[in-house]
Amino acid sequence: MPNLPKPTAVIVGVGAERGLGAALCRRFAAEGCRVLVAGRTAAKIEAVAAAIAAAGGSAEPVVTDATCEADVVRLFDLAMAPGDGFAPAEAVVFNAGNNRRIDFRQVEASVFEELWRVGCFAGFLVGREAARRLVPLGRGTVLFTGASASLRGKPGYAQFAAAKAGLRMVAQSMARELGPLGIHVAHVVIDGGIDGDRLRAARPEAAERGEDGLLDIDAIAQTYWQIHRQPRSTWAHEVDLRPFKEPF
Amino acid sequence: MPNLPKPTAVIVGVGAERGLGAALCRRFAAEGCRVLVAGRTAAKIEAVAAAIAAAGGSAEPVVTDATCEADVVRLFDLAMAPGDGFAPAEAVVFNAGNNRRIDFRQVEASVFEELWRVGCFAGFLVGREAARRLVPLGRGTVLFTGASASLRGKPGYAQFAAAKAGLRMVAQSMARELGPLGIHVAHVVIDGGIDGDRLRAARPEAAERGEDGLLDIDAIAQTYWQIHRQPRSTWAHEVDLRPFKEPF
Amino acid sequence: MPNLPKPTAVIVGVGAERGLGAALCRRFAAEGCRVLVAGRTAAKIEAVAAAIAAAGGSAEPVVTDATCEADVVRLFDLAMAPGDGFAPAEAVVFNAGNNRRIDFRQVEASVFEELWRVGCFAGFLVGREAARRLVPLGRGTVLFTGASASLRGKPGYAQFAAAKAGLRMVAQSMARELGPLGIHVAHVVIDGGIDGDRLRAARPEAAERGEDGLLDIDAIAQTYWQIHRQPRSTWAHEVDLRPFKEPF
Amino acid sequence: MPNLPKPTAVIVGVGAERGLGAALCRRFAAEGCRVLVAGRTAAKIEAVAAAIAAAGGSAEPVVTDATCEADVVRLFDLAMAPGDGFAPAEAVVFNAGNNRRIDFRQVEASVFEELWRVGCFAGFLVGREAARRLVPLGRGTVLFTGASASLRGKPGYAQFAAAKAGLRMVAQSMARELGPLGIHVAHVVIDGGIDGDRLRAARPEAAERGEDGLLDIDAIAQTYWQIHRQPRSTWAHEVDLRPFKEPF
Repeated sequence: MPNLPKPTAVIVGVGAERGLGAALCRRFAAEGCRVLVAGRTAAKIEAVAAAIAAAGGSAEPVVTDATCEADVVRLFDLAMAPGDGFAPAEAVVFNAGNNRRIDFRQVEASVFEELWRVGCFAGFLVGREAARRLVPLGRGTVLFTGASASLRGKPGYAQFAAAKAGLRMVAQSMARELGPLGIHVAHVVIDGGIDGDRLRAARPEAAERGEDGLLDIDAIAQTYWQIHRQPRSTWAHEVDLRPFKEPF
Repeated sequence: MPNLPKPTAVIVGVGAERGLGAALCRRFAAEGCRVLVAGRTAAKIEAVAAAIAAAGGSAEPVVTDATCEADVVRLFDLAMAPGDGFAPAEAVVFNAGNNRRIDFRQVEASVFEELWRVGCFAGFLVGREAARRLVPLGRGTVLFTGASASLRGKPGYAQFAAAKAGLRMVAQSMARELGPLGIHVAHVVIDGGIDGDRLRAARPEAAERGEDGLLDIDAIAQTYWQIHRQPRSTWAHEVDLRPFKEPF
Repeated sequence: MPNLPKPTAVIVGVGAERGLGAALCRRFAAEGCRVLVAGRTAAKIEAVAAAIAAAGGSAEPVVTDATCEADVVRLFDLAMAPGDGFAPAEAVVFNAGNNRRIDFRQVEASVFEELWRVGCFAGFLVGREAARRLVPLGRGTVLFTGASASLRGKPGYAQFAAAKAGLRMVAQSMARELGPLGIHVAHVVIDGGIDGDRLRAARPEAAERGEDGLLDIDAIAQTYWQIHRQPRSTWAHEVDLRPFKEPF
Repeated sequence: MPNLPKPTAVIVGVGAERGLGAALCRRFAAEGCRVLVAGRTAAKIEAVAAAIAAAGGSAEPVVTDATCEADVVRLFDLAMAPGDGFAPAEAVVFNAGNNRRIDFRQVEASVFEELWRVGCFAGFLVGREAARRLVPLGRGTVLFTGASASLRGKPGYAQFAAAKAGLRMVAQSMARELGPLGIHVAHVVIDGGIDGDRLRAARPEAAERGEDGLLDIDAIAQTYWQIHRQPRSTWAHEVDLRPFKEPF
């Protein structure tokens, strides 16, 4: 078998090394992809990319504010014009988003907007840019990270659920419009706490859930990779993931 | 029975006289409410209010850009400090929203944001302000107008579905948080064309659906009124409405 | 206005006087319908019918095992051939069903089947017979009583949820097939405890939920009646009902 | 690494070699499982088992009417008492079910019952027996094959949707009750035509959907296998699968 150029993967929303974004970068790199590591904080994405390179993989940090259209366009310019030995993007993951509990009457308009901008509008920008670049090639995968709040509004989470449900509709509309054009769009509902730095900082008591009580970032990344590898005859659009003891 | 002061109803998103917003105003006025007729276009809401007054009802036009926090606050200031013979708001309806089919790759970022601002953010502002004013009274109804796109993303409608699904999550989160505080929050899914000026202008061929093939604005308004009148032991949160021949 | 013959309503699943079935009978009778009171226990349905007659209404008890095809056919024979001053059935309600919590591994096959037979199969028989009789007339309403379990499976309720979700699919399939033929099919999701004899006997502690903490049977019946009265331009298919303090 | 005994997989609902049941058997056998090939027709399951054996795998045909409790109990007796070199069942798949379009008013009561018995009741029997055997071991996977009709009732499919939605509730109730006990229960929604003998016989025109227009049985089986392999920290409960060009 000849040496095929390795495809590019774009992971948007990368932060701490012990986070889902970083795990996705590592997984796609381990499969031989050139990975664009996109996040807002240079130090964080550089650390993720450096660790991948140290392990023999190919990764480039790209400082990206995904709520900024110009940043997203530039990211995809990089994604589609790879250097020697690499091919344009075949997989795109949108993994950004913030969450915070706030009593409904206390939600500031600016906070409601900010959560939407990061959790939904940025996803639209990434999804649309991916569509513009991938449709002419007739293939490619676009994956979105959802949450329980994508499906249900709960007390204290109007601002988060509104963003996540909006993002889910972007994914669903894309899937129905772009599937017949060869683009696989999928939405992964993360229904439980992710065992990573963010949760451990925000809610240290989550660790008390016991062994396997939190979602494992590498196991989640495995599911994303498997969805990406599905043949077009047999595509998943929505998959939910949760720990075995999570009530749902 | 003594002459009780008549309650105020706030209807946000009123346009043409042959539109759902106007029908809601007429219905609540016919039941004896003082109606605040809120919309962006002075001429339109003045016409609606004048027709109600001519029929013996009580209605006040309030020019309101529901995407503007100050406008929404001012509207509720008016709603809660009624004049002689009236009581503060007991019913609030959020009925604003735009819709337009656009190929996904052609959706401008500004259009995606604009539809969200009118269809979701404005609903949040109205819902939050209603909550702030009604919770201290321990009673009141907040109704949101949804659409098929609140539940499903379709080709060409990512921008609309993202806004409407976000609005639905606001309604759902409010219902779960505010219900136990005595506030009835409901979401009405309008699944079909509404027989009114907007549809007839945008898609004249819709009239070809035949008798009763489009939703009747007065019948929709009747459902909103009935939901408002439900006792707190027996509240609906979500109701779908469609013409008998609508595929769904 | 001439004296129109009064329409017949068929209420299937009537038991105690303080139960939803009986409340539905009283409501439709109060609106001038001739009501067929169908249930398994002669003494119970006779008491319900007698109370209606004593109040000036028209009601006939019809002992019916709704899981028995012949009983259902006979019930509709009665429904469609009314005596003087009455017209054939225009409204049919299927309100039967049992519920019981059982650990999944302890569910006997016979119990799983029995709950399906009463909660789903009987609903199919009633729905199909209603369809056969109403479609030729081109009008009529068929209402099904659902539950939270119609939408979600929970620990201990596989047998109940399987029956209720099956019934919901019967209602949904009927609505989509028969709507264009003029038959209004709706499904009411009762999401909470009903304040009636059944609950008070089975779970006396439910009364501790406080004022308005349980669904009121007359308020539920009011919703059924309102749905029945909707014009065909503006039909609800699914409505959920719960007490204000019910978590959902 | 020592030679671990190979686990047993039980696949219920196996028919033609070009069918999903057979593909599941081949897949689990290829991964080193001893496979119990359960179906109603001896000739068919013997052919499937023989082909697996010829390819070096381990498979035993077990004639099973899954609607018969005794048959299901006997199947699990075989599954839990494996011979040399094998371990008890770790994976169970329920894949039975029939489908047929029938106008609602023409659905015979016996047909409605038959589709439920094969599509839902049999799934309950298999799921319950699996639960009884696996819970004491504290691990194992139970997978159910769903369909579009698991989620939606359509004209002509009341009988099929009622069965499939019931099965889905069995799966959902099991997942919520048994997950914390270590049993992974998942439901795969097959939303499109399966490229196999059954569809080609029933609807030859389906082949006209073009390349990759039908679901590939091996690709579906791959998804089942992947779900079975998920660690308990990160379990999927529901996955939908469809061809890229399938409208949904």
